[in-house]
Amino acid sequence: MEVRKPSDSRSSMSEIVLPNDTNTLGNLMGGRLLHWMDMVTAMSAMRHSNRVVVTVSVDFVDFKSPVRLGEVVLLEARVTRAFSTSMEVRVEVSAENLQTREKRICNSAYYSFVAVDQTGRPIPVNQIQPESEEDQKYFDSALRRRELRLVLSGKLKPEEATHVRSIFLPE
Amino acid sequence: MEVRKPSDSRSSMSEIVLPNDTNTLGNLMGGRLLHWMDMVTAMSAMRHSNRVVVTVSVDFVDFKSPVRLGEVVLLEARVTRAFSTSMEVRVEVSAENLQTREKRICNSAYYSFVAVDQTGRPIPVNQIQPESEEDQKYFDSALRRRELRLVLSGKLKPEEATHVRSIFLPE
Amino acid sequence: MEVRKPSDSRSSMSEIVLPNDTNTLGNLMGGRLLHWMDMVTAMSAMRHSNRVVVTVSVDFVDFKSPVRLGEVVLLEARVTRAFSTSMEVRVEVSAENLQTREKRICNSAYYSFVAVDQTGRPIPVNQIQPESEEDQKYFDSALRRRELRLVLSGKLKPEEATHVRSIFLPE
Amino acid sequence: MEVRKPSDSRSSMSEIVLPNDTNTLGNLMGGRLLHWMDMVTAMSAMRHSNRVVVTVSVDFVDFKSPVRLGEVVLLEARVTRAFSTSMEVRVEVSAENLQTREKRICNSAYYSFVAVDQTGRPIPVNQIQPESEEDQKYFDSALRRRELRLVLSGKLKPEEATHVRSIFLPE
Amino acid sequence: MEVRKPSDSRSSMSEIVLPNDTNTLGNLMGGRLLHWMDMVTAMSAMRHSNRVVVTVSVDFVDFKSPVRLGEVVLLEARVTRAFSTSMEVRVEVSAENLQTREKRICNSAYYSFVAVDQTGRPIPVNQIQPESEEDQKYFDSALRRRELRLVLSGKLKPEEATHVRSIFLPE
Amino acid sequence: MEVRKPSDSRSSMSEIVLPNDTNTLGNLMGGRLLHWMDMVTAMSAMRHSNRVVVTVSVDFVDFKSPVRLGEVVLLEARVTRAFSTSMEVRVEVSAENLQTREKRICNSAYYSFVAVDQTGRPIPVNQIQPESEEDQKYFDSALRRRELRLVLSGKLKPEEATHVRSIFLPE
Repeated sequence: MEVRKPSDSRSSMSEIVLPNDTNTLGNLMGGRLLHWMDMVTAMSAMRHSNRVVVTVSVDFVDFKSPVRLGEVVLLEARVTRAFSTSMEVRVEVSAENLQTREKRICNSAYYSFVAVDQTGRPIPVNQIQPESEEDQKYFDSALRRRELRLVLSGKLKPEEATHVRSIFLPE
Repeated sequence: MEVRKPSDSRSSMSEIVLPNDTNTLGNLMGGRLLHWMDMVTAMSAMRHSNRVVVTVSVDFVDFKSPVRLGEVVLLEARVTRAFSTSMEVRVEVSAENLQTREKRICNSAYYSFVAVDQTGRPIPVNQIQPESEEDQKYFDSALRRRELRLVLSGKLKPEEATHVRSIFLPE
Repeated sequence: MEVRKPSDSRSSMSEIVLPNDTNTLGNLMGGRLLHWMDMVTAMSAMRHSNRVVVTVSVDFVDFKSPVRLGEVVLLEARVTRAFSTSMEVRVEVSAENLQTREKRICNSAYYSFVAVDQTGRPIPVNQIQPESEEDQKYFDSALRRRELRLVLSGKLKPEEATHVRSIFLPE
Repeated sequence: MEVRKPSDSRSSMSEIVLPNDTNTLGNLMGGRLLHWMDMVTAMSAMRHSNRVVVTVSVDFVDFKSPVRLGEVVLLEARVTRAFSTSMEVRVEVSAENLQTREKRICNSAYYSFVAVDQTGRPIPVNQIQPESEEDQKYFDSALRRRELRLVLSGKLKPEEATHVRSIFLPE
Repeated sequence: MEVRKPSDSRSSMSEIVLPNDTNTLGNLMGGRLLHWMDMVTAMSAMRHSNRVVVTVSVDFVDFKSPVRLGEVVLLEARVTRAFSTSMEVRVEVSAENLQTREKRICNSAYYSFVAVDQTGRPIPVNQIQPESEEDQKYFDSALRRRELRLVLSGKLKPEEATHVRSIFLPE
Repeated sequence: MEVRKPSDSRSSMSEIVLPNDTNTLGNLMGGRLLHWMDMVTAMSAMRHSNRVVVTVSVDFVDFKSPVRLGEVVLLEARVTRAFSTSMEVRVEVSAENLQTREKRICNSAYYSFVAVDQTGRPIPVNQIQPESEEDQKYFDSALRRRELRLVLSGKLKPEEATHVRSIFLPE
């Protein structure tokens, strides 16, 4: 086991939006984008753990701006925090029109993965040490998102979700 | 504008898991499943609104059980609640091994869509009237999930998220 | 070996028609539909036999109405009759325009499958017991279609095809 | 309108069988082959009519021999007979193992197409004049297959199907 | 080891250009064509060597004429020369508009392959004996192209490239 | 018209090798890689010219090391030189095994593109100003490669190819 930095797991992808990726308005379909986001976040989780990984949850995907046929989609992922056998990966998506040179942020999301051995059983992963201030921010809030997932899937009682509670508590 | 029932928007899909859908352990990749889930939930949202729809968010996707090469994936979706121009759709996924006849629940998720006109602008959708007790449960909790999305994307202040607060801060 | 009902093998699929599925007039290409029909009928044959199945023949596919880009194709299949190692499956296809809510029947066909073991050799399948009047009708006519296939592929002499002869040469 | 020969419409295709084309036994799936058969027969019908064509029926597809992963599928099609706005196309499929040099016939089928104008309406096609003895054989039997299709789809009474009747009649 | 003729390795493919194969001007994308060219040249190299083959280089691909959506691409390949474990394959590409019957040459290229055994190690291949005058021309110039590849990849000193030098030398 | 730097056109892509991308030895097929290389070089040419671009030639593709199923392919492209309406783009490909962390260079190639207007006619492109020593090296040798392409496609007489001649015939 080693201690790694978020930047060690940095992964990126870019794809040109082709006709079959679009709906009848000529915009990229959400499902295709979710598929690409899963690919790039899986790369990050594999880079961090050097293991085969399995998607366990997807959360907080928020599509802000439609992507058009012929534009380029850019995806950037990095591991925000590692738990015993699982990792949270943040992905940011932007779109670029190569003709107008306009580039805009489209959405972001959090994917969680578990590292598994050859029989498919969970296996411990490298720990992570945030470097930049931004890394630290995502590292800290990862705990809150994790609690939220556990509460929402019924694995944690709301009153025990101390990090989430603090959001709603007045000072 | 009409008032519709959740069952009016019921949509289902089934897919055989082929080699290109699997990772090196022979399990269905999360991204492919997210793509299929987007297709079937989009069908539901289109059935409810009779409009072109655009994915706006995906939440609370929880993968419980891996799906194997050669198995059949069954997806069932229905609209849980309609807001002014948006709809929340719940999808349930199960896997079936046609040789052993074993069938098991794999995961569920909530996708949100906005109905748009031909220029891509949001347009009002039919309202919904829950029928069964289960419909009512998803209808009620939809408000909580919506608040949570708004808080997490910074569009709503935590102290204004009255439905979510009540979970974490019971009187 | 068990005795099963046609409804036990009931399988359905639905697909949104995407740009790559269409010809230059914007209609679903026949070949794509034949591929989907093979998938859903194979599911039915696997559900009936709980075996790997191999397509042996396709007949009487009749395309009545074109399907347009963006429409949803609905496919419904069930086993009509089982012979020693083979099964006939009937599939019905309809198309639905989710914006106009118009739904229409597009075509139907009969696919035949053989169940095989791990070495690819034919293996006996469960027998079938029709329940409804409609089931009985398809069960009865299956024999006639089978004779016709055997006559046309040269495996049966026309004068021995007693069920088919009776259609064309009534006493 | 011109008179053409069957050989004028001769079209061929070849495809390498890739992993995603195969079932769990490593054999080419029937649906993929039906898709390729539709492509090559459509090419023939377009070559004959110089029009956009629409698949109207598929018949008498008989799969004789499984095709393995890594083998090459060879498809050969030609128009057998033209009617007022429709054409019957015969396709023959063989498989070749490029390592053992073994080549074998796999199956054949008849696809029917209608030529359409830009609004999708049927439009007259070039007539055909058989050249070889084999051409003549397929030209003659095309009438019988056409009657059979009409009887089976309920558009012709069995007692009026004079060409089919003659198969079942003793001399 | 045998001595084969170029015509023994002749391989052809044809493909209809579908929406996902095209760029925003409705023309076939170069990458798709390069993929098809690799498939048909690999077939030729496998036909010649009866071995699994691996692409080692691609050269002198020259796109002369754009191919339009809905047109048919015809590819013809044959081995021009065999070296100890490698083969050079020439492919010619033409496009055909089945409605106007216009057919034109689009481009040509040279692909090189190495034959490998089950462990991926290079293995000797059958030699080749040109038959026609054209075969002889490609057989002779293959040596020049090979030298050029070796010079450009730094494996041969320019002054030792005797066949290439002769192009630039005045008589 | 502007003057741009090679780094302005820098484009990268990464792809996980899936089952359908591989041959029977489990290695990435050359054709799939050529397709990805065309995508990433087209992105570079579009970034440089802010125009729709058309592939005109591909040269000097040299596959050094096989890429395995499950590995990640990394592609990096940048424009080396712009001519009046055309651009040469260099792409470098490496493969990474995310489990062993081993990364190796696989191949490189030169693609040429022409910028076109909405009617498909060639249109002038931005000029380029090399910055680094490496940029300068590729900028200089681009002229030699261009001459070589013109000689080999018969558009330039060998004796007029002054840059190429100097390699093979030093004074």
